Amino acid sequence: MRALRVESGRLVSAVVPDVRAEGEALVRVTLSGICNTDLEIARGYMGFEGTIGHEFVGVVAEVGGGDLAVGDRVVGEINAGCGTCARCREGDSRHCPSRTVLGILARDGAHAELLRLPPRNLVRVPRNVSDEQAVFVEPLAAACAILDAVDMTPASRVAVIGDGKLGNLCVQVLAASGIRPVAIGKHAEKLRLLSSRAETVEASEAGSLGRRFDVVVEASGTKSGFGLALDLLEPRGTLVLKSTFFGATEVDAARIVIDEVRVVGSRCGRFAPALALLESGAVDTASLISDQLPLADGLRAMERAASPGVLKVLLGRPT
Amino acid sequence: MRALRVESGRLVSAVVPDVRAEGEALVRVTLSGICNTDLEIARGYMGFEGTIGHEFVGVVAEVGGGDLAVGDRVVGEINAGCGTCARCREGDSRHCPSRTVLGILARDGAHAELLRLPPRNLVRVPRNVSDEQAVFVEPLAAACAILDAVDMTPASRVAVIGDGKLGNLCVQVLAASGIRPVAIGKHAEKLRLLSSRAETVEASEAGSLGRRFDVVVEASGTKSGFGLALDLLEPRGTLVLKSTFFGATEVDAARIVIDEVRVVGSRCGRFAPALALLESGAVDTASLISDQLPLADGLRAMERAASPGVLKVLLGRPT
Repeated sequence: MRALRVESGRLVSAVVPDVRAEGEALVRVTLSGICNTDLEIARGYMGFEGTIGHEFVGVVAEVGGGDLAVGDRVVGEINAGCGTCARCREGDSRHCPSRTVLGILARDGAHAELLRLPPRNLVRVPRNVSDEQAVFVEPLAAACAILDAVDMTPASRVAVIGDGKLGNLCVQVLAASGIRPVAIGKHAEKLRLLSSRAETVEASEAGSLGRRFDVVVEASGTKSGFGLALDLLEPRGTLVLKSTFFGATEVDAARIVIDEVRVVGSRCGRFAPALALLESGAVDTASLISDQLPLADGLRAMERAASPGVLKVLLGRPT
Repeated sequence: MRALRVESGRLVSAVVPDVRAEGEALVRVTLSGICNTDLEIARGYMGFEGTIGHEFVGVVAEVGGGDLAVGDRVVGEINAGCGTCARCREGDSRHCPSRTVLGILARDGAHAELLRLPPRNLVRVPRNVSDEQAVFVEPLAAACAILDAVDMTPASRVAVIGDGKLGNLCVQVLAASGIRPVAIGKHAEKLRLLSSRAETVEASEAGSLGRRFDVVVEASGTKSGFGLALDLLEPRGTLVLKSTFFGATEVDAARIVIDEVRVVGSRCGRFAPALALLESGAVDTASLISDQLPLADGLRAMERAASPGVLKVLLGRPT
């Protein structure tokens, strides 16, 4: 099968032996989405070697019993816990110390014709959610996680830094929950996508917003985002860090102490609220798709995904 | 009057005109305590110019009405809010955007014969709390603030990084609330002071503790403390940043995101719980006093406070 892989630190499009179920569920990937984390991993983040990709929708090709059947259309929670440790027993396999993570940590990923995951990780996709929507469930769940990370009400003053894919979904999730956030970004055309859901502000103008936010979501994946967030937060405000990025960030920790700010790291989220938002039509994913390329064009797709102005690049063809 | 000041960026012991009440309360300082923040300010932190010092116990020398009377023995909340902004109206003058802070921000401080503060900032000292205890109320209140910053129970697994003055008080506050923390420090003799209240661990051995803490309190004031705290925290754990320090810290923000850690800045605290702990005898301050020097020896006292192995240095003589 074809797979987009990091091998010996290099990104390659390779033909490799078909993935087999090996006691888990086998999924034939319909579409996969390129995430910024994929771009970081291709640059060496996590030291990952193997097939990359963790956003997908596919069809069950093989499964040993349980609720799922061959032919079911599914998306998948990317963290596979050991199932036996204290974390897993509490239902928090996302923090299992010996977890594997699809396309990120010790588990081949989704930019391939086939992938495998434990059956408990797979979630059936409702009929009225298309493949092109469902492929966004994983990043949308990550955006939904900001609602779990910090208590907000429609009266909360919230800013989102970053107008890329993740920032866009964060703004949409906030808007769907009744908040009208301020969206801060560097790209006029990306901000325009958000203009019905947020007050949009160019990053170069963000300094003049002043310190008036209860919550700032950092979803730009840039090192400057952390400092800007501190510039915008009210004392005792909450900074939600959504983006992972490679390398150290310089932080003026004294500001965190003096203003008694909370910094909350937030990674993955629950799939159910994300699927519900897609079913209801509250979140628009179509405008986020910049391109769709065959899996065999994976290298070109990764370049495209890294280009300025580009949002989501999908791999594969819908069934 | 004599005062220990930063003038044109230099620490000086000066004779200056007596501070006057100017509509606030005038306090004759009995004892003042040298805090690490004083040492940082003498190095340029906050860009402060004027009389330094913010830990004190004194006697009211002049006050225009209200509850207080001349002769009352008092300690003082160091943040003086404007009294009219939204923050102040909510009772949170500590975060008033136009606040002054005793010996730290636009207000002459406590290493002097006299100081002034708004009468509402002053708190009477109970009879059974000595001057040598009362001078610790401000840093003890800051230590108590960790209980406000994060929910803990006696079952919480808590580590405190730093065996200095602030770390010591944090350990004592935790112990008084029924928690048996792990105290991590670089100085065997300072750790020994905490051996009845905590499991003590040399910093060089702390790496072997593993990731097993729900809460880590960073009170070492060192840049390495942030990274060590992340090494010790369980996923979804809380890092309480207590120390202010001068300059940028390198933080691997990806670790905050991946482990969904909370970082909570915590600065000053409420005086009432601190006074209650001193009254009850639950917190020992005597063992923290390394030296007591006359105010006129302020420069020497600052050097002494910066010396290895030294804990609290007090200025002045009890009445």
